[in-house]
Amino acid sequence: MEGAIELVKTVRLLLIGAGNVGRHFLELITLKRDILHDRLGLRLVLAGVADRSGVAVCSAGLDPCRVVELKLNGQGVAAYPRWGQVDVSALEMVETAQAGLLLEASPVNLRDGQPGLACIDAALARGMDVVTANKAPLVLAFPRLLALAEANGAQIRFDATVAGGLPAVNLGQRDLAMADVYRLEGILNLTSNYILTSMAERGLSYDQALAHAQAAGHAEADPRLDVEGWDAANKLVILAHSVLHYPATLAEVAVQGITGLTAEVLRQAVAEGKRVKLVAAAEREGGRYRLAVGPAWLDASHPLAQLGAEQMGIVYHTDVCGVISAAIVEETPMPTAAAMLRDVLDLYGTKS
Amino acid sequence: MEGAIELVKTVRLLLIGAGNVGRHFLELITLKRDILHDRLGLRLVLAGVADRSGVAVCSAGLDPCRVVELKLNGQGVAAYPRWGQVDVSALEMVETAQAGLLLEASPVNLRDGQPGLACIDAALARGMDVVTANKAPLVLAFPRLLALAEANGAQIRFDATVAGGLPAVNLGQRDLAMADVYRLEGILNLTSNYILTSMAERGLSYDQALAHAQAAGHAEADPRLDVEGWDAANKLVILAHSVLHYPATLAEVAVQGITGLTAEVLRQAVAEGKRVKLVAAAEREGGRYRLAVGPAWLDASHPLAQLGAEQMGIVYHTDVCGVISAAIVEETPMPTAAAMLRDVLDLYGTKS
Repeated sequence: MEGAIELVKTVRLLLIGAGNVGRHFLELITLKRDILHDRLGLRLVLAGVADRSGVAVCSAGLDPCRVVELKLNGQGVAAYPRWGQVDVSALEMVETAQAGLLLEASPVNLRDGQPGLACIDAALARGMDVVTANKAPLVLAFPRLLALAEANGAQIRFDATVAGGLPAVNLGQRDLAMADVYRLEGILNLTSNYILTSMAERGLSYDQALAHAQAAGHAEADPRLDVEGWDAANKLVILAHSVLHYPATLAEVAVQGITGLTAEVLRQAVAEGKRVKLVAAAEREGGRYRLAVGPAWLDASHPLAQLGAEQMGIVYHTDVCGVISAAIVEETPMPTAAAMLRDVLDLYGTKS
Repeated sequence: MEGAIELVKTVRLLLIGAGNVGRHFLELITLKRDILHDRLGLRLVLAGVADRSGVAVCSAGLDPCRVVELKLNGQGVAAYPRWGQVDVSALEMVETAQAGLLLEASPVNLRDGQPGLACIDAALARGMDVVTANKAPLVLAFPRLLALAEANGAQIRFDATVAGGLPAVNLGQRDLAMADVYRLEGILNLTSNYILTSMAERGLSYDQALAHAQAAGHAEADPRLDVEGWDAANKLVILAHSVLHYPATLAEVAVQGITGLTAEVLRQAVAEGKRVKLVAAAEREGGRYRLAVGPAWLDASHPLAQLGAEQMGIVYHTDVCGVISAAIVEETPMPTAAAMLRDVLDLYGTKS
């Protein structure tokens, strides 16, 4: 109820990573400052931010707009007037700054999870809550991080790690908490879906479709993680841990990418009333789940078959909650940044 | 984390209404007793239950299975051995029984909301939390009930009132709490969608399709509330209050039902690549929303167009969260009962 909030909670946060998602998060908390304060009882103070250039730390609060300006001008946060520092690392900031919440949006590094993993470890060890958009630390160390959080009375949220701004994790972890999910299927990687949809609908070759995806900002210069299926596999591992209560490892996911598919194969599928999509799936077999990522020939009536180029989606097959599907149209990084803010509200917000 | 819960919370609940949804809820809490206890830290004690026959109240806890057996044998809860009483009303039970939570699943009565409204009032006035599957009290008195809850330090949840087991309210109220929803569209009434889909796909007449829906348990003997659009309009009013922060009244919803549609019209639409669905929609115009329920000719690519006979769905168009859609396949009342349990977990459960 508007106006009913009397207590406003102040949360001091540190942001690691000021790339696409981190920068949109800073824009978002500026854009939504009044709603956060008036309707949700929350005042967010940016106590520190880190990127490759160094850090900017100010316990009284940095100006998020100023950080956004620096980044749009091609500068690092170390150039922040007065509070920028080139000789301090993200980890050192997390270990020393006064804050209750770490927002982790640094680049995905599947080799060792760094620098995100060390920052999350340090934050949780200090009892700080963590909201992360970075899959790697979770894929590498999910059970350990959850146990570390619990041991320190802290919480960790990661809705932004799976399917961008779609609340796929929240839906499964919270709305289906009492359900037995015996099967899930998802289109979890936007790049692959953009490419496959462009090939099927516009007759583009793989290379043409990839170039289009890169031009639209939906594919990296090096797209291998996405088109070879590993990004979707990472997300599947996170869903397995968090929704299926199944301690999956990346090694047990059968992974196949989309690089072997031709426009002809995709158009032939359409002619037969089917759609080829890169589907991540988990299916229970006995006491465990079989996990796979690969091209699937879906009937046109399948809830994932109709998803367009800029969409992702998920389907949960459950015992008592029916079959629940959800999808998002995501044209910019803003919905993923909003998923981070959703997690912040889940931790601290007052339900309006 | 399994095994990490050390404190188990005991919640004593009263259930009003032991029809389809209420009975399934009792089956559900029996079926899920171990998961609720071990994973979610919750022990539910059925302290009382009421139906048209009277009540059964026992502060040590009734056996939910015994209540289910009575209902399946065509008996009322007043026949419950030792604790059944014919001369006590639901309201009297709520006013006197020892419990912290009221579950309201009594029949929808749009005239005056009774008996549900009086029971909810009484529960909130005592500081009891309320989880309701009954639309009528909310449609008639949403702002008053929310204010009453707040004044008494109680909470009210109603995810089960809209689109059955689909977490449509939760998704909007919680996952989109920071977003501006400038438009929403939903297929919120299963009966109408079942009928329209049967007519379009199987060439049935309206009367034949209605008879099929009734035989499948998807339509009431008197289907007017559903097929004339008023059930969907009620749900739209609840979404307007809870998700759009817009204090809608039923009177301002432009309502048109499906009774004027013929199989020929529906099949003609399919031939033109469209689907006719009963759509409830809210669209912002200036400082208010325009609300309408009526048949809509949707493009086949519309996220609601593909929904089958036993499905409902919703689409939220937002400023910063993209376009988020969700749908459910709901073949029995169990998912709606599960939505009530979801609300209970939202109030008391420990996130696993």
